[in-house]
Amino acid sequence: MALIVQKYGGSSVGDAEKIKHVAKRVIATQKAGNKVVVVVSAMGDTTDELLDLANQVTDNPSPRELDMLLTSGERISMALLSLAINSLGAKSRSFTGSQAGIITDEVHGNARIAEVTPGRIQEALDEGDIAIVAGFQGFNRESKDITTLGRGGSDTTAVALAAALNADLCEIYSDVDGVYTADPRQIPSARKLDSIDVESMLELAAAGAKILHIRAVEFARRHGVDLRVRSTFSEDPGTIVFATNNGEHMEESVVSGVATDKGQSKILIEGIPDQPGKAAEVFTLVAEAGANIDMIVQNTATGVDVEAKISDISFTLPKGDRAKVMAALEAAQGSIGFKNVEFDDEIGKLSVVGAGMRTHSGVSATLFGALAKAGINIEMISTSEIRISVVTDINQVDDAARAVHSAFELDSDIEATVYAGTGR
Amino acid sequence: MALIVQKYGGSSVGDAEKIKHVAKRVIATQKAGNKVVVVVSAMGDTTDELLDLANQVTDNPSPRELDMLLTSGERISMALLSLAINSLGAKSRSFTGSQAGIITDEVHGNARIAEVTPGRIQEALDEGDIAIVAGFQGFNRESKDITTLGRGGSDTTAVALAAALNADLCEIYSDVDGVYTADPRQIPSARKLDSIDVESMLELAAAGAKILHIRAVEFARRHGVDLRVRSTFSEDPGTIVFATNNGEHMEESVVSGVATDKGQSKILIEGIPDQPGKAAEVFTLVAEAGANIDMIVQNTATGVDVEAKISDISFTLPKGDRAKVMAALEAAQGSIGFKNVEFDDEIGKLSVVGAGMRTHSGVSATLFGALAKAGINIEMISTSEIRISVVTDINQVDDAARAVHSAFELDSDIEATVYAGTGR
Repeated sequence: MALIVQKYGGSSVGDAEKIKHVAKRVIATQKAGNKVVVVVSAMGDTTDELLDLANQVTDNPSPRELDMLLTSGERISMALLSLAINSLGAKSRSFTGSQAGIITDEVHGNARIAEVTPGRIQEALDEGDIAIVAGFQGFNRESKDITTLGRGGSDTTAVALAAALNADLCEIYSDVDGVYTADPRQIPSARKLDSIDVESMLELAAAGAKILHIRAVEFARRHGVDLRVRSTFSEDPGTIVFATNNGEHMEESVVSGVATDKGQSKILIEGIPDQPGKAAEVFTLVAEAGANIDMIVQNTATGVDVEAKISDISFTLPKGDRAKVMAALEAAQGSIGFKNVEFDDEIGKLSVVGAGMRTHSGVSATLFGALAKAGINIEMISTSEIRISVVTDINQVDDAARAVHSAFELDSDIEATVYAGTGR
Repeated sequence: MALIVQKYGGSSVGDAEKIKHVAKRVIATQKAGNKVVVVVSAMGDTTDELLDLANQVTDNPSPRELDMLLTSGERISMALLSLAINSLGAKSRSFTGSQAGIITDEVHGNARIAEVTPGRIQEALDEGDIAIVAGFQGFNRESKDITTLGRGGSDTTAVALAAALNADLCEIYSDVDGVYTADPRQIPSARKLDSIDVESMLELAAAGAKILHIRAVEFARRHGVDLRVRSTFSEDPGTIVFATNNGEHMEESVVSGVATDKGQSKILIEGIPDQPGKAAEVFTLVAEAGANIDMIVQNTATGVDVEAKISDISFTLPKGDRAKVMAALEAAQGSIGFKNVEFDDEIGKLSVVGAGMRTHSGVSATLFGALAKAGINIEMISTSEIRISVVTDINQVDDAARAVHSAFELDSDIEATVYAGTGR
């Protein structure tokens, strides 16, 4: 008897009819001879509606109270799903994050799971019940307060429970039927992958693919939890993300997929003295402003006076963090001693990801050849062991993605039609 | 420094603007030099909307899961109120029923409070915070499951917390500005009472006055908690319900008020053998069907054969319980041996309540005189120490109430205008 954790996103439980549909899927999984734990997100746009209510009463919500508010969304969907399952004749019990033993740190709004003690879940499973768990939430053992795991945190709840319960598989259901070689809304000829290794999935998620939450993928990698990404509304087996040895025998494709990200800004700092510690000063400042930076490029140019060499540093960061980082840099211009700082919100990032890059040469040549042929101007380049990312003008990134997708022969003969959103 | 518990009903927190208004009232109470605990109901019609969602997924909801679902409503309102209070510069923390230490029995949907351990509330108050508590909910210590206290249970939460914290006063806020001598929607000349004793309030609540939940009044009586019933939307001091010795010095009015109830049915069982135990058989059956009966009248008539005396028994019960009780009685007709059973949904109950009835004679004479003069036909009569109730045709009960209200000189010179609903 296998133990399967299933996570259903907000679009999968968007109304009563969809909840009944999910109930049938869950029962079918149990009837096939499995123990089943189900993690649910809030219904449809519930979380946004609750946030909107909070914004109507305050401009500056207390993080503790905001978590108390937002966690009611999953409470509604999990109780309704459990009611639906019960009414179809199967036994189920719903559990809040704290009842399910999801223990976190105290960072309201973006808590990290510290420990999972799923005693009540195990008990329910042992008694033949289906366990329904509220995603996205946990509680802090010291303060006894409710916490949330941040957007997309239900994926993380599911993977963490799968790890703690030593589940055989963790299925992530949404309205998307798998992991594609690119976003099919952008590249209709994108091909669904039957499988992908967890490292490549991690790079794709980091590069802007919205199919899985990056923290959940990282959790799956660290704890060796195999994931299956599939659609609530079809019987397609979806894409398996191998995090265990089972994946060793799969053929490593050179390139698994292409991802783009239009949500970043670029900041360029010109004329920094090329002295030890100056770059560190800049990035300490950025970190103190609370921003996560992504790509960094430093060019050292020879100044007019050979003794006074200067550098330019440019980096990318989420658009939402740009204003505060610019303000911090402008305030520190005198103390750091750079000449000028400017930003560009009109950038797009294109990434090519594949575990096979480790062993295959020629990936860069194919990539830059395709970009050159398509007339794409490259502003920045960064690489990891299994990823190459380039920054282009935001208006060129879609063309760039199509050109690169074709160059790596990722195009499918049939166009994807089922893709409808991210389903988180 | 006094400790005040305030309870705000659903209509008081119906939208963001109203929540901000309540936040200001709460802060003003604290600034006046009090420690404040606030109990909130779910916003407006939230509970009904959640019930509607439950009915969309199942005809026969599991009580445990229904409680899990419904308690999300108070979680939303309490978090929003706490956010609003914080944003106005005061300190507050919200607590679920279980965090507030509301421990109940295991009866989902209608749990009774077994114990209140308000350690976290006391701690918040000691640190100068306003404590916001979700009404209507608690948890069962054995099963560790969430429970609800039944409709209007937020009143009970407030009174139970006031008792456990030894509060100086428990204020019940709604859109009604106090306890009236009658429902002003029915009798516009009804007069607001400055004060009423808790026993009379209990009888009025039992007789159909919807201003306070009967279990909350009973709790206040048993634990000696003074209540103040007042409006969220006016500065009127409302009505104080004395449960302590403070009330001994008030003048006991002969009649405090008149209440009507159109939500009951009458069942008449004809021709029951007048033997010991037959009435017990009937009422055991009714209790097993899960119905609460209210008034009971038994008439013993002499049969044709003097040896075979028979009785008629009639009783009233909530309309919603009538069908199942009729079915149970019809099934048992043979074993109990009565001749006929029938029901009447078209009845109204009128009650006159007053602590002064204990010591003043002539109340019955005034009551029945007024009813006779108004041409009201009386079907049943029942009395307690401080209440007389009569059952009439449903179409006559409003006229009856007006006649009786005048006869006891309860009419005010000014018509009430602020009364708008029950506000629970």
